[in-house]
Amino acid sequence: MSVTAAQGFEAAGVAVGLKSTGKPDVAVVVNRGPLKVGAAVFTSNRAKANPIMWSQRVIQDGVVEAIVLNSGGANCFTGSFGFQTTHQTAEKAGELLGVSAGDVLVCSTGLIGTGDEVFRAKVLAGTEQGIAELSADGGEAASLAIMTTDSRPKRSVVTGDGWTIGGMAKGAGMLAPGLATMLVVITTDAVLTAAQADAALRQATGRTFDRLDSDGCMSTNDQVTLMVSGASGVTPDLDAFASALAEVSQDLAKQLQGDAEGASHDITILVQNAASEEDAVEVGRSVARNNLFKAAIFGNDPNWGRVLAAIGTTQAAFDPYDVDVWMNGVRVCSQGGPDAPREDVDLTPRATDLVIDLKVGAASATILTNDLTHDYVHENSAYSS
Amino acid sequence: MSVTAAQGFEAAGVAVGLKSTGKPDVAVVVNRGPLKVGAAVFTSNRAKANPIMWSQRVIQDGVVEAIVLNSGGANCFTGSFGFQTTHQTAEKAGELLGVSAGDVLVCSTGLIGTGDEVFRAKVLAGTEQGIAELSADGGEAASLAIMTTDSRPKRSVVTGDGWTIGGMAKGAGMLAPGLATMLVVITTDAVLTAAQADAALRQATGRTFDRLDSDGCMSTNDQVTLMVSGASGVTPDLDAFASALAEVSQDLAKQLQGDAEGASHDITILVQNAASEEDAVEVGRSVARNNLFKAAIFGNDPNWGRVLAAIGTTQAAFDPYDVDVWMNGVRVCSQGGPDAPREDVDLTPRATDLVIDLKVGAASATILTNDLTHDYVHENSAYSS
Repeated sequence: MSVTAAQGFEAAGVAVGLKSTGKPDVAVVVNRGPLKVGAAVFTSNRAKANPIMWSQRVIQDGVVEAIVLNSGGANCFTGSFGFQTTHQTAEKAGELLGVSAGDVLVCSTGLIGTGDEVFRAKVLAGTEQGIAELSADGGEAASLAIMTTDSRPKRSVVTGDGWTIGGMAKGAGMLAPGLATMLVVITTDAVLTAAQADAALRQATGRTFDRLDSDGCMSTNDQVTLMVSGASGVTPDLDAFASALAEVSQDLAKQLQGDAEGASHDITILVQNAASEEDAVEVGRSVARNNLFKAAIFGNDPNWGRVLAAIGTTQAAFDPYDVDVWMNGVRVCSQGGPDAPREDVDLTPRATDLVIDLKVGAASATILTNDLTHDYVHENSAYSS
Repeated sequence: MSVTAAQGFEAAGVAVGLKSTGKPDVAVVVNRGPLKVGAAVFTSNRAKANPIMWSQRVIQDGVVEAIVLNSGGANCFTGSFGFQTTHQTAEKAGELLGVSAGDVLVCSTGLIGTGDEVFRAKVLAGTEQGIAELSADGGEAASLAIMTTDSRPKRSVVTGDGWTIGGMAKGAGMLAPGLATMLVVITTDAVLTAAQADAALRQATGRTFDRLDSDGCMSTNDQVTLMVSGASGVTPDLDAFASALAEVSQDLAKQLQGDAEGASHDITILVQNAASEEDAVEVGRSVARNNLFKAAIFGNDPNWGRVLAAIGTTQAAFDPYDVDVWMNGVRVCSQGGPDAPREDVDLTPRATDLVIDLKVGAASATILTNDLTHDYVHENSAYSS
């Protein structure tokens, strides 16, 4: 049900030919209220797509009526014509829905540098068709329409005490954290103010989507949006809501990891006993971005030396000669020297657990990443995306 | 001739079974003087191999009599036993050469975490055998003995006004800048003080080896060493010497790039009209480390959007919407929008030129990198290295 699991939302997904495959490529999600609260986080890439620049303005007042998302083209680096396309998309949706264009978010995903007249015409047609097909069970169709190289849709629902949170996500490449790292729409019928929604969203994304780093490449178009209808009439306990929102976010982040382009391993990097959470994140990310480590995992090779070579490039507080490293439960390195034999480690399962014990403090963080595979190279060399 | 091109040096390369292939794996280079001046730069990785820790002490007084290098094992994260192995290597060489062990540098390269009794015995045997086989034309043999996954040796010679600089290098993976990025030994018979040698070496490496970033992975064992015999009796013009040293360094760096593991393109990234050289380096490096861009080049796809997405993650001064990008002479992006058609770009040659014009200043920098290929993944997943 994804974005229509919570009360007060309608959605649709339609096909207008933006994708050469003819698959659905425009999604619309509308908030029927009574609240029209919204919050969003955006890529921190300075190279921002037109829909990001538009949506950053829209979100400022905390009011969101609807969101239009297209796959099949990023509308990034397409000049003022591209920005006008985004603007016209919001105006079209606003006109048809009887709301202000300034309360309509827009998201795009696909190849950078494409966004001509044909693209514009298709996005506008998709907006119109999507709004015509809105329904209270359109969440699944919407989740299909935002897919790009994804092999499957990503959906998640968590139910609280009288309220519900549901979400959808897309993303298989260029997965590295800015503020957000993909297109995600999460809806809830809980009663929240804009400030509460914003705080909850930033807290959830900071420890979920922001800690997914599949390939170290930050997108120009990423956006995570939370839409609040309040249709349940229930004002949630804020801690319970934050926890549920983090659960939906982490569920979607794990689905993104599990479907990352070409990956054969989902690697969970737990950095523990760090001096600070920031240190733990920096150490984890240095490993997540190390091609040699990632290629070794693809080859089922527990090459812990590459872990130490990666973390040695960071500024985090630890002694490289007093670090322990576990792979899938086997301590292969202790105090910066060899421990259990490499042969004891079974790396054949897709789920791969790496634990790095820095032994200097009590903080920890978990980074999700993937291995570097032939299929990753193939997908990202054989096709423009 | 590599390290024996300059007068006053002897070298050897021998095979003692550190490599399973039986190929040469221990090299020795000895300075016969009259000067015994040395300078070296080391990896900035905090995870440092035992020979790095040893050599950093040896170099402090600017006196170097000899250097022993082994392939077939990095002697990194092998504990105090490994450090003793390095120490014993220097002592063995010092004893046989009649010099202080404290003036003998040691370098190792190969798999991290290996350095047991067998390794020690072989390195000591290789040191002894290498010293027995020293000769004034041993430079070629030495350059073969330091190879790991290199497919060919790297050698360079430049002759100045009465003096000569010669060098050898090894390195095919884990090529990313620290201070140095590989094992390199450069010799000269010019007359230089230790301070002059150190200054010239730092200047040369800063703009050559430090700007080679093949795969973003910084080694634990990298060292670039300059040995000065003064045997020509000629005190060089320092600018001419610096220029010649930079020429040898860049020649070796390009040979390393040309032989990088699995690469099918040598990519030269020129960042021009930057506000500062630091900005130009930061921008160039962000592209050199972007897997999506590197995979696109492998696929002969001039995907300039990935260039902009990469540079947008930096803090350098520029407007992402006023940047021009050329690929192999074709301006594919101007002012942050599409320019010439992608089809106009021919990416089939191995040599690939990327120019990024930031349009904000007068500084520039060139970064060398490679593409991301199936063979890179294969070499780094199928074998421990």
